Amino acid sequence: MTYRAPISDILLALNHGAGLQAAVKAGHYGDFDGDITAAVLEEAGKFAGDVLAPLNKVGDEHGIKLADDKVTTAPGWPDAYQRWIAGGWNAVSGPEAFGGQGLPMAINAACTEIWSASNIAFGLCPLLTLSAIEALDAHGSEELKQIYLEKLVSGEWTGTMQLTEPQAGSDVGALRTRAERAGDGTYRIKGTKIFITYGDHDMTDNIVHFVLARLPDAPAGTKGISLFLIPKFMVNADGSLGARNDIYPSGVEHKLGMHASPTCTMTMGDHGGAVGYLIGEENRGMLCMFTMMNQARLGVGLEGVGIADRAYQQALAFAQERKQGRAVGKKGDGLDPIIVHPDVKRMLLQMRSLTAAARSICYATAVALDISTRATDARVRAEAAARGALLTPIAKAFSTDIGNEVTYLGVQIHGGMGFIEETGAAQHYRDARITSIYEGTNGIQSIDLVTRKLAANDGASVWALLDELSGIVKQVEATNDPAFGTTGAKLRDALGSLERASKWLLERVASAPNDALAGATPYLRLFGSTLGGCMLAGEALAAKGNGEAGGDPQRYVTVARFFAENVTVQAGSLEKTVTDSAEAVNGADAVLLG
Amino acid sequence: MTYRAPISDILLALNHGAGLQAAVKAGHYGDFDGDITAAVLEEAGKFAGDVLAPLNKVGDEHGIKLADDKVTTAPGWPDAYQRWIAGGWNAVSGPEAFGGQGLPMAINAACTEIWSASNIAFGLCPLLTLSAIEALDAHGSEELKQIYLEKLVSGEWTGTMQLTEPQAGSDVGALRTRAERAGDGTYRIKGTKIFITYGDHDMTDNIVHFVLARLPDAPAGTKGISLFLIPKFMVNADGSLGARNDIYPSGVEHKLGMHASPTCTMTMGDHGGAVGYLIGEENRGMLCMFTMMNQARLGVGLEGVGIADRAYQQALAFAQERKQGRAVGKKGDGLDPIIVHPDVKRMLLQMRSLTAAARSICYATAVALDISTRATDARVRAEAAARGALLTPIAKAFSTDIGNEVTYLGVQIHGGMGFIEETGAAQHYRDARITSIYEGTNGIQSIDLVTRKLAANDGASVWALLDELSGIVKQVEATNDPAFGTTGAKLRDALGSLERASKWLLERVASAPNDALAGATPYLRLFGSTLGGCMLAGEALAAKGNGEAGGDPQRYVTVARFFAENVTVQAGSLEKTVTDSAEAVNGADAVLLG
Repeated sequence: MTYRAPISDILLALNHGAGLQAAVKAGHYGDFDGDITAAVLEEAGKFAGDVLAPLNKVGDEHGIKLADDKVTTAPGWPDAYQRWIAGGWNAVSGPEAFGGQGLPMAINAACTEIWSASNIAFGLCPLLTLSAIEALDAHGSEELKQIYLEKLVSGEWTGTMQLTEPQAGSDVGALRTRAERAGDGTYRIKGTKIFITYGDHDMTDNIVHFVLARLPDAPAGTKGISLFLIPKFMVNADGSLGARNDIYPSGVEHKLGMHASPTCTMTMGDHGGAVGYLIGEENRGMLCMFTMMNQARLGVGLEGVGIADRAYQQALAFAQERKQGRAVGKKGDGLDPIIVHPDVKRMLLQMRSLTAAARSICYATAVALDISTRATDARVRAEAAARGALLTPIAKAFSTDIGNEVTYLGVQIHGGMGFIEETGAAQHYRDARITSIYEGTNGIQSIDLVTRKLAANDGASVWALLDELSGIVKQVEATNDPAFGTTGAKLRDALGSLERASKWLLERVASAPNDALAGATPYLRLFGSTLGGCMLAGEALAAKGNGEAGGDPQRYVTVARFFAENVTVQAGSLEKTVTDSAEAVNGADAVLLG
Repeated sequence: MTYRAPISDILLALNHGAGLQAAVKAGHYGDFDGDITAAVLEEAGKFAGDVLAPLNKVGDEHGIKLADDKVTTAPGWPDAYQRWIAGGWNAVSGPEAFGGQGLPMAINAACTEIWSASNIAFGLCPLLTLSAIEALDAHGSEELKQIYLEKLVSGEWTGTMQLTEPQAGSDVGALRTRAERAGDGTYRIKGTKIFITYGDHDMTDNIVHFVLARLPDAPAGTKGISLFLIPKFMVNADGSLGARNDIYPSGVEHKLGMHASPTCTMTMGDHGGAVGYLIGEENRGMLCMFTMMNQARLGVGLEGVGIADRAYQQALAFAQERKQGRAVGKKGDGLDPIIVHPDVKRMLLQMRSLTAAARSICYATAVALDISTRATDARVRAEAAARGALLTPIAKAFSTDIGNEVTYLGVQIHGGMGFIEETGAAQHYRDARITSIYEGTNGIQSIDLVTRKLAANDGASVWALLDELSGIVKQVEATNDPAFGTTGAKLRDALGSLERASKWLLERVASAPNDALAGATPYLRLFGSTLGGCMLAGEALAAKGNGEAGGDPQRYVTVARFFAENVTVQAGSLEKTVTDSAEAVNGADAVLLG
């Protein structure tokens, strides 16, 4: 079945949950006209449904091929990519000086969800290009920008990010790829990178690789890493393509999912070394990486949202069609669609509410990151930057965790059919699996949240957010709408748990770091469940207040209530896990090594 | 990497957690000599590690082939199956009158875990044969038993269970396969079955199919279903094989996992109809099915335990070898194995403790089912039958849920490598996915638990169990061993939650069935988390008391504590979900259909 972008849900989450509308009104978005949001997203949804969604299964089944040093993508993919460029979709949030539309990251975030939902393996390619654009725009020389940026922004060329090596995964500082100064200002790069997404493909004439490498005299670890731009084909002075550069795909991985997205081993130096151009300063490559990390991590979080929504739509359609058994109390001949069964309803609501919560968290992250660069007031920018930094690991990890949970339920609702590849539910389940691993494993996100984001300003960013969320909870409590059930109480309890767990961790980040680290994963889940619950409640209130929900705001109230009573309700347990279980975790050597 | 059966853990869970030792002492196992348990399991572990484990990946990669109406299994599989028969492993719990060893189901349960861990797709075949044996032994005519039972017990022939049709999955009553009386006491069966596990293969000379079908004059629904034995090859009077019967594999499924296990579409009637022999009485086929349901569901639960343990062993080995980053506080050159990181320890402990809890629950189920048939005292038998019936849906659903969770974490610990098929972690993740679906989806298990098991005797079986568990908790509290941390308190709270949730559901099963059904899934999780937590604590106490743990009982204390503080601790939230969220679930039509 195809994919239909849930425009009403997206607009409610973007404008109200994430606060885009208020931010625009407050002038933090400059001259951005919020009225165009709906039109852009409608068009994006149309492109995704018409062009990208039909290729999702094709790509999974065909996969990619490597032969004669070239990667070939699945049938229809190069053509779809050309339509993607022609439609201007690659340039949505690109810098206007280089042909981009300069739209807010928040708009692009909604688009990224839509691309990921329709075809996650396709959407991954521009996601990488976006990171490349950001690195080049922020740290590249004027000359490099002139040559490469416009083509990357339009999508005529794609970008790759090359960090990983066999011995250097999460530990980037362990990389060994060598860069030598060529004497003419360029460098020659030799080494092997693995797990390089879209490291080679046949969708564009050229590919611009961004490669981390180490100079001969570089210090050890992350302080000795430099970032280089390495074109697949050299670019002549007139902009035409020149010689083939010495960077080749030497292998492709056979993966659990994302079959259509080539994951390459890249070899540099078999022919004298790849010509590379320094981005930023020597030995400051990690700085360039950090620049784009927020956006890349948010992008992966949005993949989680997208794949979850796709799985939900498919499961919902199946549950409405598949007939087995009778509803309680019904007698006589005939069968009912399985959606009448409370347990199936529960699974669908779990899918929908988890997806909606993750969406809101991701969009709120995007709005914060937007304000951090667009607002005129420095204090507003700084606060938004802190908010964006705080939310990024939650957006990445919570959304991709739930992407896996939701696609799991998508298979479950299909019963035995879900295990059959033809059905398509299993593809979403397989594709989702990488999102909680790449761009920093979710464990690393949790550690980032505790040790860097929570601890950054002694918790100030967290307390500020809790204050805001508390305001939403007060409004829920004040409505006295019985449709909210116990939502207010659940959210109130969760805020208390989140505050206490935050304080407990803050007290230990420096003094007992292993205790803080042991609680990182349950803490992130506690944070996401509490934040998501409050945001959904806020959106339900907004829908009730201004009719955003297309005439039925109670839908959003039900989703918010379900989430509070099924997900946010776990906050108390998660708090106890954070505060009580560090001793068991850190004292477990005898169990694990015995 | 290979698989090593965790014999000490298994023996502790079997003898103490599940109470096998006490039951033997009390005389409930007749003349069974408990001292042989360890020897049998050691041998099973050796066979599994030497013969079955090496074929697991081979089977996944080769899959099976259907050509010329015949299914061919992966290289080495037919030979391994012959060694399986020769080793007597198929006959462990088979009836002695037909060549079986007549060992308790509890011993076979531990063996089933071991087969599933080493090679889940292989182990599935004898699991089906076991169900066939049980149906034939309990309901077959003496003549049919004489012809078929010995060969099924030895494994010389395998069995299939054929229920599912395209329109009849969870809703067995909707099946349409027709059986007509042939006039000679036999029947002619025509129809198509789908999802038939090992419906055809090349590991044995003959296959004995057990097929549900409907007579022309049968009532509608489940009351009009009869069970037939249909041999692949007819059996001559002298026991030699005769003509090919009219039942053929007409298709095989392309599945997410379990690639080595053929999942066949079976067609009967292209050549006049398959010759079938009635098992039990006409229109009483569902009764025969119910006979074997407990054992089959327990078997699938044990698949969950097995695949979880396999994933754990692989992840543990990886975490001990893979070096990335440094332990907190370590400086200078060099990297540490990732097992030093608290977040990795947490994942490993989560895997290990979930597996251990599920194992204990499954073994306890087996012991109860054993006592229900072996004890001499009718009251003891009846109580054990109720206990076994109560535990079966929990054993099935909790264990397969955690099989999926644990294999998920197994992939996660491998990082990017986990997504690469070559690593092997992904195979476990894929293989595990079917276990929460087949043999009754886990949603159906939850509903069975609430509507049939909890409600069967107005909760008496549950209250009896809670009393026992409370006794364990008192002992934990009494030890004052600080290594237990907050285990006692967590278990005590959980028992309260389980009791309250049980009462809440009991009050609604009849009066507000949809409310009870809406809470079924969280209730089963609450039950499993509480029961598992208490059992692990009981095992830790036993290990401390009698040195079962091979010199280090604190290992079991740590596992029990971790489980209580990370899993059982969720009981309070799950209770609230059961009691608070029915309204949101059942009022969600506007959300799901809007």
